[in-house]
Formats: sequence, structure tokens, C-alpha cells
Amino acid sequence: MEHLKQFAVTLCAAGAVGFVAVVFVLRWVLHFKEGLGWDGGLAEFNWHPVLVVSGFIFLQGIAIIVYRLPWTWKCSKLLMKFIHAGLHLAAFICAVVAMVAVFDFHNAAQIPNMYSLHSWLGLIAVILYSLQIVLGVGMYLIPATPVSWRAAFMPIHVYSGLLLFASVIGVALMGITEKLIFGLSNPKYKDSPPEAVFVNVLGVLLVVFGALILWIATRTSWKRPSDQILHTLHTDGGDQDNGKDGPGLAELATGEVRRRNNTCDDPE
Amino acid sequence: MEHLKQFAVTLCAAGAVGFVAVVFVLRWVLHFKEGLGWDGGLAEFNWHPVLVVSGFIFLQGIAIIVYRLPWTWKCSKLLMKFIHAGLHLAAFICAVVAMVAVFDFHNAAQIPNMYSLHSWLGLIAVILYSLQIVLGVGMYLIPATPVSWRAAFMPIHVYSGLLLFASVIGVALMGITEKLIFGLSNPKYKDSPPEAVFVNVLGVLLVVFGALILWIATRTSWKRPSDQILHTLHTDGGDQDNGKDGPGLAELATGEVRRRNNTCDDPE
Repeated sequence: MEHLKQFAVTLCAAGAVGFVAVVFVLRWVLHFKEGLGWDGGLAEFNWHPVLVVSGFIFLQGIAIIVYRLPWTWKCSKLLMKFIHAGLHLAAFICAVVAMVAVFDFHNAAQIPNMYSLHSWLGLIAVILYSLQIVLGVGMYLIPATPVSWRAAFMPIHVYSGLLLFASVIGVALMGITEKLIFGLSNPKYKDSPPEAVFVNVLGVLLVVFGALILWIATRTSWKRPSDQILHTLHTDGGDQDNGKDGPGLAELATGEVRRRNNTCDDPE
Repeated sequence: MEHLKQFAVTLCAAGAVGFVAVVFVLRWVLHFKEGLGWDGGLAEFNWHPVLVVSGFIFLQGIAIIVYRLPWTWKCSKLLMKFIHAGLHLAAFICAVVAMVAVFDFHNAAQIPNMYSLHSWLGLIAVILYSLQIVLGVGMYLIPATPVSWRAAFMPIHVYSGLLLFASVIGVALMGITEKLIFGLSNPKYKDSPPEAVFVNVLGVLLVVFGALILWIATRTSWKRPSDQILHTLHTDGGDQDNGKDGPGLAELATGEVRRRNNTCDDPE
């Protein structure tokens, strides 16, 4: 119960911070900048930060922790895998459209593409993210994939997912820096006009959102319990934790029992 | 043996990439920029990237994985704690001097301080890093601290340490972006002069270094074995893994046995 309360508080905090970040990026482009459009101009460029923050960061963060939501534990693992993959796919589409918007804008304004560290790391992140999705589908949604491959690949899948998420936030912070330097002229970024302070706060919100998602994703006691766990507890001598006062499902799902199960289940 | 080989390869890769990043930042300031000095000018500013890359990133990365080095496992845990804390303290001193250099330069050139997202997040990172060191010393180097506090704080200590490390790299990438935009005028950053490409590569190296350190730090099978583990295996019914073919010390150190030990040992 204590675990559930802590989880709920952290989840609400992450959701609230992520939501406020999306509101901030919308206010940035609609109030401070040129609004949204698809005309090759600055209004088209503005889709870039909007889609990155709302899609590539917020949606990706939700996709990462979707297995942790206790009210989904009665749903089948297969359904949750489709939701996890679907949210990541939606985030990927947002990232691609965000890139198209910035390439269109650069081409129309005759600004070179792919010269900055932001663009290098952003493109690498999108390519690796697509690879992560393809490998994830191949490993965990194609029934023919051997369970031993699934188990062996899981640590890489989890590590790559969290690293890519953190990297995308880092790349977004570089993009914010670029846009505030290039987009503010009178007053300049160094004069701290209201837009500069507002967007700096957006950057801080993105870091806090990322930190909360990574905290949720790395707490083993908040993992979705294995479908096999009760069976294992009775047949595999796994009753070593029974001395505790009322262990929750999430607690039972951690530790050795979970590890021994990971060939027949795909703990995320 | 296989684990040791994989660890050695990853460690060598991390060391090599980190070393090359330090060489790159030195070549950047000595060959492309104004060199190093302490005169309030650009040569003083250049200490900022040098100390951040070599100290706040490279040294911090080594400090994080120092417990993982198998040839240190015969050393006492207390000695390793002092080395871990000492390396972090050295990284912190580098970060503070790096900040002093940039404040000096800004003040002499009448450039405002603390207006950019880079400066906001950088200052937050240094403050939280100092807090991390103070709390770490209080928890794990002061003998009077109750072992229950040490165990309860360990997940936060580890998470905060890795998050701060990743954040510092993110902040450095923003700093590189700022410096390339402000520091290149003819040709500009968007014209991709050799310096721009060279420093972009430095940014990629920092990301790869961070990814390797985080991989090493999050592999449970590469953890330093608990000092208590053999004792526990004999007295606490912890012989459940004995059916495996020749488990290494590092393998034995993972899982339930390690968790049950964490009140008398401080696994990092």
C-alpha cells in the first residue's frame, strides 16, 4: 500500500510536469513566436519544438512506464506490449514530422542542414529509436522469436530505451539553446527578455520530467508482476519472502523469482 | 571468465573514448582557440571546457565505476569508498574552478551571468553534486550512521549519481552549442568550418563515453561482490544458485543474497 501511494504520487508529479511542459511549448510558439502553420516559414519550424516536446519526449515517457501502471496489470501482457509499441511508434512519427518541418524551413530559408551538434545527435537519436522499435517488435511481438533470445535481449532493450529517452531530452535542450540564441535579436538572449526566461523554465521542466520517468522506470518494486509468479512461488521453492508482513504483488514480482521467470515472460 | 572479458572490453572502450575526448578538448582550446591562461580573457574562459570535460565528466565517470574494477576487490570497502569520494571531490573542484573561469571572463567582458539555460542547469547540477557528496560522506563514511539509513538511502544515492552524471554531459553539450555559435564568426557555425566539425565530434564522444559508463554502472553482474556473501551463502539458506556451472563471485553477488546483505554492506 505504501509502495502504491509512493508510485501514485511520483506518477502524478511526472504527468503534471510533462503536461505543463507541453502547455509551455504551445504557449512559446503561439504567444511568443509566429504560431503554427505549414508554409515553409517560421510557423512550420514551430512544429519542431511542439512535436518534439509533446511527442518525442512526453509520449515516449508515457510509453516507457506504461507497464508500471497497476490498473493495467489485469490486462494481458500482449495487449500491454501493443500499447507500449504503439505509443513509441506515435512518438517516432512525431519525431519524423518534427524533422521534416525543420528541413522544410531550412531549405526554404537557404539555411544549411545538419551542421550543428544538435542536428547530428538528433538524427542519430531518431535512427537509433527506429532501430529500437524494429528490434523490439521483432523480439517481443513476433511469436516465433525464441524465448531465450527475448531474455538475453531484454537488458539491452531496457538500457537502450532509457538511454535514448535521456538523450532526446539532452538534444532538445541543445535545440532550445540554439533557438533562443538565433530567435531573439532585440532584446537578445543575454538580456533575459520574458521569452528567454519562459523557455529556460521549459528546459528545466523537461529535465524534471525525464528524472521522474527514469525514477519510475528503474524502481524494481514498481514492476508489473510476472504472469508466472504465483505458479513459481508454489512449485519452485520461491517462498523465501513469506515471512514478510503481507508482501504486495509488486514486491513478490521482484528479485530471484522474477529473474527465473524471464524466459517465459518479458518483464519491462 | 566471459563476464570478465566483456567487462574489460567495455572498460577499455570507455577509457579510450574518455581519453580521446580530453585530447579533443585540449586540441580545441590550444589549436583552434586562444590557449589557456588566467587573465580574465578568452584564454581564461577556455579553462571552462577543459575542466568540465577532463574533471566534471571524465573523472566523475571513473569515480562512478571505481567499485566495478575487479583488481580492487581485494582492497577494503572503506579504502574504495575513500577513492570513490576523493575522485568525486576532485571532479567537484574542477567544476567549481570551471565556473569561476567563466564568471571571471563574463565580468571582464561585461557579459551578463546566468541568463542561459546552460548556466541555469549547470549551476543546479554543481549545487546538487555538492549535496550528493555531502550526503554520501554523511551516510557512508561517518561510522555513526545507522546501517538501516545507509541501506534505505542507497537507491537514491545511486540514482542521483547516475542522473547527475548524465545531466552534466547534457549541460556540456549545450555549452558546446553556445560556444560554437558565439565563437565562430567568419566562417560561421552553419558554414561547418573544421573547428565546428571537430567540436561536434567531441560532443559525440562525450555521449558515447556517458553511454559506456552508464552501461558499466548498471550491470548487476559486474558489481563488486559483497564482503558478507560467502558467510551468507552458508548461514542464510542462500545456496539456491549452486546448481549453476561455476558461478563467479560477481554473479553470486547479485540478486537476493546481495539485497539481504545491504544493511551491513554498501553495494555501489
